Amino acid sequence: MRDPRYDILFEPVQIGPVTARNRFYQVPHCNGMGYRDPSGEAVMRQVKAEGGWAVVCTEQVEIHPTSDIGPFIELRIWDDQDMPALARIADKIHEGGALAGIELAHNGLNSPNLISRETPLSPQHLPVATFSYDPVQARAMTKADIADVRRWHRQAVRRSIDVGYDIVYVYAGHALGGLHHFLSRRYNNRTDEYGGSLTNRIRFLREVLEDSREEADGKAAIACRITINELLGEDGITRTEIEDTIGEIGEHPDLWDFVLGSWEDDSVTSRFGPEAEQEPYVRGLKDLTTKPVVGVGRFTSPDTMVHQIESGVLDLIGAARPSIADPFLPRKIETGNLEDIRECIGCNICVSGDFTMSPIRCTQNPTMGEEFRRGWHPERIRVKSSDAHVLVVGAGPAGMEAARSLGQRGYRVSLAESTRVLGGRVEREAKLPGLSAWIRVVDYRQQQLRKLDNVDVFLQSEMTADDIIDNDFNHVVLATGSHWRSDGVGRWHTHPIEIADGADVLTPDAILAGLRPRGERVVLFDDDHYYLGGVVAELLAKENFDVTLVTPGAHVSAWTVNTMEVARIRKRIIRAGITVETNTTLNRITADSVDTGCVFTGDERTFSADSVVLVTSRLPENRLFDELNARESEWAKADLRSVRAIGDAWAPSTIAAAVWAGHRYAEELDEPTSADVPFLREVTELSAQPGRLLPLAVESAPA
Amino acid sequence: MRDPRYDILFEPVQIGPVTARNRFYQVPHCNGMGYRDPSGEAVMRQVKAEGGWAVVCTEQVEIHPTSDIGPFIELRIWDDQDMPALARIADKIHEGGALAGIELAHNGLNSPNLISRETPLSPQHLPVATFSYDPVQARAMTKADIADVRRWHRQAVRRSIDVGYDIVYVYAGHALGGLHHFLSRRYNNRTDEYGGSLTNRIRFLREVLEDSREEADGKAAIACRITINELLGEDGITRTEIEDTIGEIGEHPDLWDFVLGSWEDDSVTSRFGPEAEQEPYVRGLKDLTTKPVVGVGRFTSPDTMVHQIESGVLDLIGAARPSIADPFLPRKIETGNLEDIRECIGCNICVSGDFTMSPIRCTQNPTMGEEFRRGWHPERIRVKSSDAHVLVVGAGPAGMEAARSLGQRGYRVSLAESTRVLGGRVEREAKLPGLSAWIRVVDYRQQQLRKLDNVDVFLQSEMTADDIIDNDFNHVVLATGSHWRSDGVGRWHTHPIEIADGADVLTPDAILAGLRPRGERVVLFDDDHYYLGGVVAELLAKENFDVTLVTPGAHVSAWTVNTMEVARIRKRIIRAGITVETNTTLNRITADSVDTGCVFTGDERTFSADSVVLVTSRLPENRLFDELNARESEWAKADLRSVRAIGDAWAPSTIAAAVWAGHRYAEELDEPTSADVPFLREVTELSAQPGRLLPLAVESAPA
Repeated sequence: MRDPRYDILFEPVQIGPVTARNRFYQVPHCNGMGYRDPSGEAVMRQVKAEGGWAVVCTEQVEIHPTSDIGPFIELRIWDDQDMPALARIADKIHEGGALAGIELAHNGLNSPNLISRETPLSPQHLPVATFSYDPVQARAMTKADIADVRRWHRQAVRRSIDVGYDIVYVYAGHALGGLHHFLSRRYNNRTDEYGGSLTNRIRFLREVLEDSREEADGKAAIACRITINELLGEDGITRTEIEDTIGEIGEHPDLWDFVLGSWEDDSVTSRFGPEAEQEPYVRGLKDLTTKPVVGVGRFTSPDTMVHQIESGVLDLIGAARPSIADPFLPRKIETGNLEDIRECIGCNICVSGDFTMSPIRCTQNPTMGEEFRRGWHPERIRVKSSDAHVLVVGAGPAGMEAARSLGQRGYRVSLAESTRVLGGRVEREAKLPGLSAWIRVVDYRQQQLRKLDNVDVFLQSEMTADDIIDNDFNHVVLATGSHWRSDGVGRWHTHPIEIADGADVLTPDAILAGLRPRGERVVLFDDDHYYLGGVVAELLAKENFDVTLVTPGAHVSAWTVNTMEVARIRKRIIRAGITVETNTTLNRITADSVDTGCVFTGDERTFSADSVVLVTSRLPENRLFDELNARESEWAKADLRSVRAIGDAWAPSTIAAAVWAGHRYAEELDEPTSADVPFLREVTELSAQPGRLLPLAVESAPA
Repeated sequence: MRDPRYDILFEPVQIGPVTARNRFYQVPHCNGMGYRDPSGEAVMRQVKAEGGWAVVCTEQVEIHPTSDIGPFIELRIWDDQDMPALARIADKIHEGGALAGIELAHNGLNSPNLISRETPLSPQHLPVATFSYDPVQARAMTKADIADVRRWHRQAVRRSIDVGYDIVYVYAGHALGGLHHFLSRRYNNRTDEYGGSLTNRIRFLREVLEDSREEADGKAAIACRITINELLGEDGITRTEIEDTIGEIGEHPDLWDFVLGSWEDDSVTSRFGPEAEQEPYVRGLKDLTTKPVVGVGRFTSPDTMVHQIESGVLDLIGAARPSIADPFLPRKIETGNLEDIRECIGCNICVSGDFTMSPIRCTQNPTMGEEFRRGWHPERIRVKSSDAHVLVVGAGPAGMEAARSLGQRGYRVSLAESTRVLGGRVEREAKLPGLSAWIRVVDYRQQQLRKLDNVDVFLQSEMTADDIIDNDFNHVVLATGSHWRSDGVGRWHTHPIEIADGADVLTPDAILAGLRPRGERVVLFDDDHYYLGGVVAELLAKENFDVTLVTPGAHVSAWTVNTMEVARIRKRIIRAGITVETNTTLNRITADSVDTGCVFTGDERTFSADSVVLVTSRLPENRLFDELNARESEWAKADLRSVRAIGDAWAPSTIAAAVWAGHRYAEELDEPTSADVPFLREVTELSAQPGRLLPLAVESAPA
């Protein structure tokens, strides 16, 4: 079963009064469900526990209405009203066999309190440090405020233990937890005993740790999540300061959870950082404490994990994203099934769930966020309900996942791909600068398909309607992808733009197929706003084209604010020498120029351009779908029971959406539902006190 | 009581099978509570009904998971699970004495379906038309899709009537309701019977109206909310098309609700549009139908309202924002108390609730959004609990509201203002370009204070700690405001920046006090990101300074995305000849230049500048607060029971927050609470089926 060289990963680790059964530790991470969808979160966490993680944590849990980080949807432990949801999550983690961790947080300066309307609390008077620019300032905390936060934190520790959590966090990380702000000279300019010297700046943290230990009283472990380097030089938390901090309070918590800089620094995409990127920052800190330490690094390789342990960097292998991509990662290492690991591609689509207040999703794991509401599981699926033979046309992300999941259900599946390779758009896009890790979407599925005797893969097999109707397929699913439009239609222009005869216009498809602009001066029009426009610009600049990126967005690759990449992308674009024209539309294309318009005024300008690349929107490849539908009268005779299109061939979207659509097709084949809402959901419970709805109006003075 | 010239406003209006008791009509509007806070919304609507609005409507209600406009929080009528919340809202509106309207919506292309993950539906294949750039494309609807939407809409009509709604909407407005997309050539390029000619483009709307009438069967009125001009010329819905539309289906609904363009076009702030701005667009349409018509125009003047009726523009006075600022506006006209009307200032802070997913708030009406959870009421307040004499120091928005509300409670109040005028920052800011309507915050409160014999107002009365301790005040509340920092500290710089001796540096306070830059070339650094930096730049440009606006934001006045002003502000800034440097920090100031930095790369540039205006952050004016606290030992002898600071003097924020803080102080005086959560809230009800949490895993195939 297990390779002995991985045995070390399965050693138990004592964490204060509790014992982790192995070294796999799902660190706290957001999920876009939180207080709105507690059972959704509970079962998502349960599945990870079942998958072998020794510790499974919640995301940050707001301890008080003065720490209200809405619009983001995390958990709350404001008062007893929140306890049932928190209890359910702990219970489900325990059912899965893991220790349950809860990340208590008072966000201080990071909480704009838009919902509660309370004044944010901070080391000094400063505008709130949120992802937006909320017109709210925090107030410098008084001693009474500090005492309040300590009291609220104590209450939260007690409530956490009451509902069964085994590990309770003190959060001083990511410039999100308020204790971080006290630690950092960036935010703390106090002149009292909570500011100035490092000893003073860690005082509040020390007190909260001491409170928490006392309150826990040996019934739960206390973890401390802390930023080990703010990456701001002397303007922020430095390595030396953290060494000194551990020197002073290294034995205070039962566990140290090390994070790097802000959340953006800590959860870098694969486009901008490798596996184990944090290692040089974390190395050496473990030596300063007897307590176990956990850290992250987008670890998916068991050898890398072993290295972290054996070289003394970490005691516990922390993971957020790898545990999302594969909740069963520990189990697969334990059972020696390394080839079954669904490796995180580092795209941060998971993070976008938090930023868009929608349930977490994952490119690799389509069941993420669907565990409770649709009953999907990353490893198990119900057995087939018929002996149907299913044809999947197109081996891109949707088709491969459909074939894999249908095969897992036991269906006889034929997967027909017109090209020589599997992977569709993923195979092509993974060759673009920085996106090589994305090929894991293909690799995992190719590996799984190899193991399924009931799935046959046919390459270089262009299918026609005749082929399909003349064969014995009972269900046909078209995953034929999409193509980029070359007429400028997208978000800004909903009708084709003027393009002169003789103009050299390319799309991403042409670029991915190896074509290149005919002249040096290239204008790339990005009205798609996700990653591709920026990546193609980067590719062309690397190849020494003179690139101008024109976009109606205020940012390059504007939607990547949701994957925390937008600033890194812009820096790379600038460094690549690409000219950027934001807030600008492309209105028409002549043979040697483009006319642009200001999105605010409409004012036009003309740029010289030899060639234009249009990254605007896509059209489904649905010729075959249409042909088959036109011949519906022939289906019955051919025992063809259904024809469906999925993924980009249905409606172009993300790779994650394509994988999800493939999975959904497989889950729902032969399982029709007529429900208006095809998933379970939880809704707000109405107050049982309608008579108290206007309590103060009862005894009131007239206006 | 009522002035007879307003009698016409109180005539009943027949709307199909129901009768509005007068002409005041609260049109559908969002509120940031929706499905998350249903009782909060219910009581908010109830108060409006009580205030005299004949009709009170919900915001848009999503009829199906394919119309999921998350992250925004509106109402849902997906299935029966949503019925209790919708019933509570209807019941509360009825308790208040109004007809209840429900705005059913299928958003089509406007719904990214991030939560439900369903494919958005649209007239043609297009990227979703959302406020962000979600990487999701909608699919062109088939006939089956159209039939589905019709069926869902019918179900929603039935459910609406089942829980008591009197008026049920068909939403074809604002480019939000999906029927708008079918109407508009901007979105509809279909070649079937639903595209092409106007008759074809209104076919879907006609069908849904017919379905709705049939389903309602005389038990409720059917309203149609429609965009009467998309303001895109021939590229969108034109006036002529709407005239023809009413010609074809003018008798289909029982009521027409006319809106202008997109939501941004329809809800223009006072900075960019006057009262009754829609009138020229709406005029004449009423003549084309026998059905009553409602329209909006930020109406707060009863004479303007009468004019709308008498001149035949409207039958019903529609209002969203004026009904938020004063839920009792109709009642006050009815009782002849026009001077008590709290007129909407047109700032759109209400809209920001929707955009930030937080309960709606209002600059003028601090009780908005607090009706259920804190039991606040816009007209009533509990009587005083003691005979205390309260000193309010500072007659800005917080102080005036505190004095007014304390006076309403019956307390003896002294309001001391150091200057010659009431209003504080509002009085000063209202003189800036476009902000004149904001003075209504002062006008309303000044008028109310005049009526309160128990409130004494003292102008030119600078208070000292001695004055306070030597007098007979039992409670002192300091509403002394804040001042703008002149050291560059804000969001980007948390420590003072380098400023050379001899540099001419001004703050907004200096500008508002009448000072002006000493030289022509002015750099304005906006790290505040709400309106003020942009407004001051505009003022200086009008005065012929050569202005460069530098901001770390990607937009000028970036937070005004939440008040739907950001594009209009930018256009005005461009037209004023102001140079804009976005994504740029101000790093240091010399006597004749500034050094800036790129927020992405840190690369520095130098700009010549004679003068610099810093709009970064503020500091509370808390000298008196600190002095009094330092003398706490003397309080008891002086029978001084409490000293508090509120509004900007506590923590600088919006004017709305200051007014709210003043009101809160008054509500809570002598009413201490020890609750951790000082308001009622509703939380998610956990699924009662934990055994079904993984239903499909029961009979599953192994991986």
